[in-house]
Amino acid sequence: MDYPYDQAPGAPVRSGIPEHGRVPKYYAVKARIDVLVGELSEGALIPTERDLSERFGVARETVRQALRELVLEGKLRRQGRGTVVAGPKLQQPLSLASYTEGVRRQGRTPGRSLVGLDRFPCPDALAAETGLERGEPVWHLERVLLADDERVGLESTYVAVARVPDLDSGFDPDSSFYAHLRAHGIGFGDADERVETVLATPREALLIGTPPALPMLLIHRISRDPEGRPLERVRSLYRGDRFSFTARLHG
Amino acid sequence: MDYPYDQAPGAPVRSGIPEHGRVPKYYAVKARIDVLVGELSEGALIPTERDLSERFGVARETVRQALRELVLEGKLRRQGRGTVVAGPKLQQPLSLASYTEGVRRQGRTPGRSLVGLDRFPCPDALAAETGLERGEPVWHLERVLLADDERVGLESTYVAVARVPDLDSGFDPDSSFYAHLRAHGIGFGDADERVETVLATPREALLIGTPPALPMLLIHRISRDPEGRPLERVRSLYRGDRFSFTARLHG
Repeated sequence: MDYPYDQAPGAPVRSGIPEHGRVPKYYAVKARIDVLVGELSEGALIPTERDLSERFGVARETVRQALRELVLEGKLRRQGRGTVVAGPKLQQPLSLASYTEGVRRQGRTPGRSLVGLDRFPCPDALAAETGLERGEPVWHLERVLLADDERVGLESTYVAVARVPDLDSGFDPDSSFYAHLRAHGIGFGDADERVETVLATPREALLIGTPPALPMLLIHRISRDPEGRPLERVRSLYRGDRFSFTARLHG
Repeated sequence: MDYPYDQAPGAPVRSGIPEHGRVPKYYAVKARIDVLVGELSEGALIPTERDLSERFGVARETVRQALRELVLEGKLRRQGRGTVVAGPKLQQPLSLASYTEGVRRQGRTPGRSLVGLDRFPCPDALAAETGLERGEPVWHLERVLLADDERVGLESTYVAVARVPDLDSGFDPDSSFYAHLRAHGIGFGDADERVETVLATPREALLIGTPPALPMLLIHRISRDPEGRPLERVRSLYRGDRFSFTARLHG
């Protein structure tokens, strides 16, 4: 038996297909391309659809489906008219460190580009979730997240205007919002975070530059200062093919 | 302007579509069905494809695409020949509490069904990841995870045979593995966890009973006992339409 010696511990179990199950042809091709990808280095061009369909003796549409899934999963990426081996997913800590710090720790250059900054009275739902006063002025800061100039996510931050009155004048939207808070003497107490997978909306896909069907990781954060007062409500959407999140748990 | 008063704080921003962007017709239909879903209660039958296509004046294929995405996201679910409003996603804590405890806390009945229990010499990759000895006997326990008899995930646990020699005889595979460890006097020290989104393989989709294209949440865990010795390596795959994960962070 070839299992489980030939596989990485986090890889799906390949053996033990139930008796009544059949492996679809595209998946067999996907598994073989995956092996090929493992032998190449990041950025290497893989053979064309035509070459692969000849090599494996299958229709080009079968190869196309296999490639599509490998792209969605972040193992391959399109580059010009070809397809190349993608780098490993970025591992971002689930912690109160900022996006900036997380990306830097992995040797990448973080960046942000401003989508918009609005100011409006806190609506009921946001007040109920955060403990902010209904009707008090809040900022909504929306930015595209970058890593080495690649668009990788979209972040919406909601924060009371009373906390950071100068957000529209004294803050560079390409810099870390958490560094700005620290500069105002505002620290973090704790936060509740929730991670789920969603499909990008057309607007989000356009802003991040992803195909609309790409599964995304969505992180909701509600944070409080050391006195337990509401601080911010953040909605961060990350490309599922480019990010994973890590946590250290204690017994 | 209708934004952001009309939306929940965690919902995608609907306004501010960039000038050059157009909202695809299926997405406009999806947004309208989403509003309808919000007005109905869990388990309520939504109108048929034909009714919806007449109501919105669009092709049935457009309605079908909107419904497909709402199903993938877990807002609707198929039931017999109809489509009904799904319940909220289960919120499982990212903690060293077991699956069993997490599901119970939400008022659901946890269950497990055994896929297989194998014993083999620890391969290189698993040894490198966990600190187990290469070649020492390890168990691989694979189970389908259930909530109220619904299949919601698939879990692979790798643990040294020396830790739990009686796993094949003294353990009920429908019960909590962590409770079994505790009964053997084995406690947890800490663990590293990593969350990503992946597509289910055909084998996994068959075992869990999901459509193959459904985005899943995959959690990798490597845990150690209070003395820092390797304990287990777990690969848990959860339906992305049924689960989210929560964490409490400290500043």
